[in-house]
Amino acid sequence: MAAVSLSTQRAVRWYPPAYDVRVEDVPMPCIEHPDDAIVKIKLAGLCGSDLHVYRGHEDVTSPCVCGHEFVGEVIALGDGFFVASPGRPDLYTTLKVGDRVVSPFTVSCGECHFCRAGITCRCIHSTLFGIPDLPGGQAQYVRVPKAGGTLFKLDTITSMLPPGKEPLADSSLLLLADILPTGVFAALQALQHPKVASIINGVPYPFNGFVPEGIVAPQHAQLHPEDRSLTFAVVGLGPVGVCAAVSLLEMLSEIRKKASLKFRVIAVDPNASRREKMQAVLTSISTDFDADTVTVADIPQAKDIVAHWTGAAGCNAVLEVVGNNSAISLAYELVRPFGLISSVGVHQAPQLPLTGREVYDKNVSFDFGRCPVRSMMPIAASILAKRQDVFGGIGEDASLIDRVVGLSEAVEMYEMFDKGRVGKVLFDPWR
Amino acid sequence: MAAVSLSTQRAVRWYPPAYDVRVEDVPMPCIEHPDDAIVKIKLAGLCGSDLHVYRGHEDVTSPCVCGHEFVGEVIALGDGFFVASPGRPDLYTTLKVGDRVVSPFTVSCGECHFCRAGITCRCIHSTLFGIPDLPGGQAQYVRVPKAGGTLFKLDTITSMLPPGKEPLADSSLLLLADILPTGVFAALQALQHPKVASIINGVPYPFNGFVPEGIVAPQHAQLHPEDRSLTFAVVGLGPVGVCAAVSLLEMLSEIRKKASLKFRVIAVDPNASRREKMQAVLTSISTDFDADTVTVADIPQAKDIVAHWTGAAGCNAVLEVVGNNSAISLAYELVRPFGLISSVGVHQAPQLPLTGREVYDKNVSFDFGRCPVRSMMPIAASILAKRQDVFGGIGEDASLIDRVVGLSEAVEMYEMFDKGRVGKVLFDPWR
Repeated sequence: MAAVSLSTQRAVRWYPPAYDVRVEDVPMPCIEHPDDAIVKIKLAGLCGSDLHVYRGHEDVTSPCVCGHEFVGEVIALGDGFFVASPGRPDLYTTLKVGDRVVSPFTVSCGECHFCRAGITCRCIHSTLFGIPDLPGGQAQYVRVPKAGGTLFKLDTITSMLPPGKEPLADSSLLLLADILPTGVFAALQALQHPKVASIINGVPYPFNGFVPEGIVAPQHAQLHPEDRSLTFAVVGLGPVGVCAAVSLLEMLSEIRKKASLKFRVIAVDPNASRREKMQAVLTSISTDFDADTVTVADIPQAKDIVAHWTGAAGCNAVLEVVGNNSAISLAYELVRPFGLISSVGVHQAPQLPLTGREVYDKNVSFDFGRCPVRSMMPIAASILAKRQDVFGGIGEDASLIDRVVGLSEAVEMYEMFDKGRVGKVLFDPWR
Repeated sequence: MAAVSLSTQRAVRWYPPAYDVRVEDVPMPCIEHPDDAIVKIKLAGLCGSDLHVYRGHEDVTSPCVCGHEFVGEVIALGDGFFVASPGRPDLYTTLKVGDRVVSPFTVSCGECHFCRAGITCRCIHSTLFGIPDLPGGQAQYVRVPKAGGTLFKLDTITSMLPPGKEPLADSSLLLLADILPTGVFAALQALQHPKVASIINGVPYPFNGFVPEGIVAPQHAQLHPEDRSLTFAVVGLGPVGVCAAVSLLEMLSEIRKKASLKFRVIAVDPNASRREKMQAVLTSISTDFDADTVTVADIPQAKDIVAHWTGAAGCNAVLEVVGNNSAISLAYELVRPFGLISSVGVHQAPQLPLTGREVYDKNVSFDFGRCPVRSMMPIAASILAKRQDVFGGIGEDASLIDRVVGLSEAVEMYEMFDKGRVGKVLFDPWR
């Protein structure tokens, strides 16, 4: 185990009941368990869900170091590393001090049934960074439990870069902690659902999916070319919504290389500045998409455009990236009969705003819940590597990241972010 | 067009506001459109959803001929038949007077986008039999609109019969109109969902489903054998629930022939007589299932057994075959994180009983709605042909059908069925 000699570090700490963060000296983290790693933070993100704690909306009652998005460098590893460990995640034998890593916003052990099945968001050891039980990443150092399962080595991405491309900046890599995998997940849930996959593969429902051969001989019916058309909406254009839209377009473009498929995507938000950001991102990537393929709209426009595009049928799938009942109701209105709502928004206490008859009468499917970030990282990393034009900038019209500041500005940034006066902020704890 | 000379026929007719059915002479149906067929009814079913109209719970305000489940023989076809019709459903050229047919409970044209995509329940011409717009099958004759798309020829099933088996009785074939396809659909939605299919195929999520090769190289990770274990619950053991459980077992057994997969199924109902029926059916087919694989339970038992079987994780999928909020709440309680609720119960006006936080925190998926019966018929017919032991009897402990009576007993049967004093009844309008 590498020795760590410092005894205190700078960190952003939240105090109950609400709206109180302070930049303080806190204890250096140390190896508490053989599977721990200590990571020296390069950059840490300020995320919309940090505001739930900031505003006192979560059941947190004691002070805690904030933040669940970070990239950094391994400076210490527990005794669980460096030993032959058949059946354990590879990183327990391959991770080294000095490796650059990103962490998902929750711990995932890689060893329980859920992690082995790829459902890392429901790891039985799942803990969110940035709560009293597990100090977060808005600091100079952080302890990562179950680190061989949780961490993702950033040098993995080097091989994914298109020839001649620069290595990715830390500010881009940080998007892998949460928002880009969550956007990928929203898109992938939609593309993989049998109701959508059937159209992609051109095989009528239900014969695209599993039907036992012992029961019915394989069917060879193919959809008419004019039926191989898909319409998607992305509801909510915060940073995760933008990631969802870009991921969806990226994957649909790949599909279209191999299959004759038409698609249309509408990106929807009532907030004009969010629509402008989305439009700027689309402009930066849209050489092969015209306005009749991908468009940005407010809510009334979206209803009209979807009706016009689909002859009033509705969208095959709606990606809901907001997390409230207005968004669910809008998604229901926009989705077609036998369509899917892929909901990754973080929902709160209200009862769902739909009746049983409404969901029965429209044959609606829903996939709700948290992204299994660790499982999505290879896909998200690949999209990140291909799309530096979208995910590489800072402070430009089309950038997802607004600015990078030192921890000394954290109090001001939380206040501004809470009031919507600043976009996504990253902290460089060494600035 | 074959001529039909009779001018009146006997039929069961419902009168508003409620609890009033009469057996009357009503006009003979006739060809009203070139795509119509007239079918002479052999048997018609009395279905639980007939009670919605009977009790006055639907918005029906004028008298109508009841019934949406029937088998019979084609006695007349419109001019849309017998002509070369490229691109139209095959039956427009192959169906003949004298053919034995079954109809789904709704019209499906076979020609709109939804029908071509296999989503026959959302046909743009969808109409339910047994409402004022479309007289039902509890009669001697019925008009079937869009008959080349809607009807299913019963001789198709002859080739599916195991060697040496008797042809199927009309009372078995009638189950194809609604309840067996709906049971198959409930099971198939569960087996095809990516969250379940991943375990069946032994490939960790999300790499069992579609991930563009242009984005990430195919992954070759395989699930550990001990992770290839699935637990299902069937909530609601009316006739459709029994069909769902049998269909699920049939398909899981086929899967197990090719893949090393463990599975467990629990069938749940608070009603003792329904549990006894389910148990009798299981006993008739269960030579290869022990009590630790398939079991029948009331609600408190089900919670305990699922917790015991799964180490408190819950079921991978719950088939909800009731259609009320108690059933949805129970399904939510029984399903595991990242699991699926396949809901085919016909739901009514109440708001869904779950909060956004509950569905987010458990990563729950839902597939709601009506079965695309016409698309499911080939699969349902195959299961019917293999399982005459289950679907062949009348009035026995393990029979889904309680009795066959003449139309003259219809008034009494509606009353008894409404009060739960009789099981599934079929009408023979020539008795």
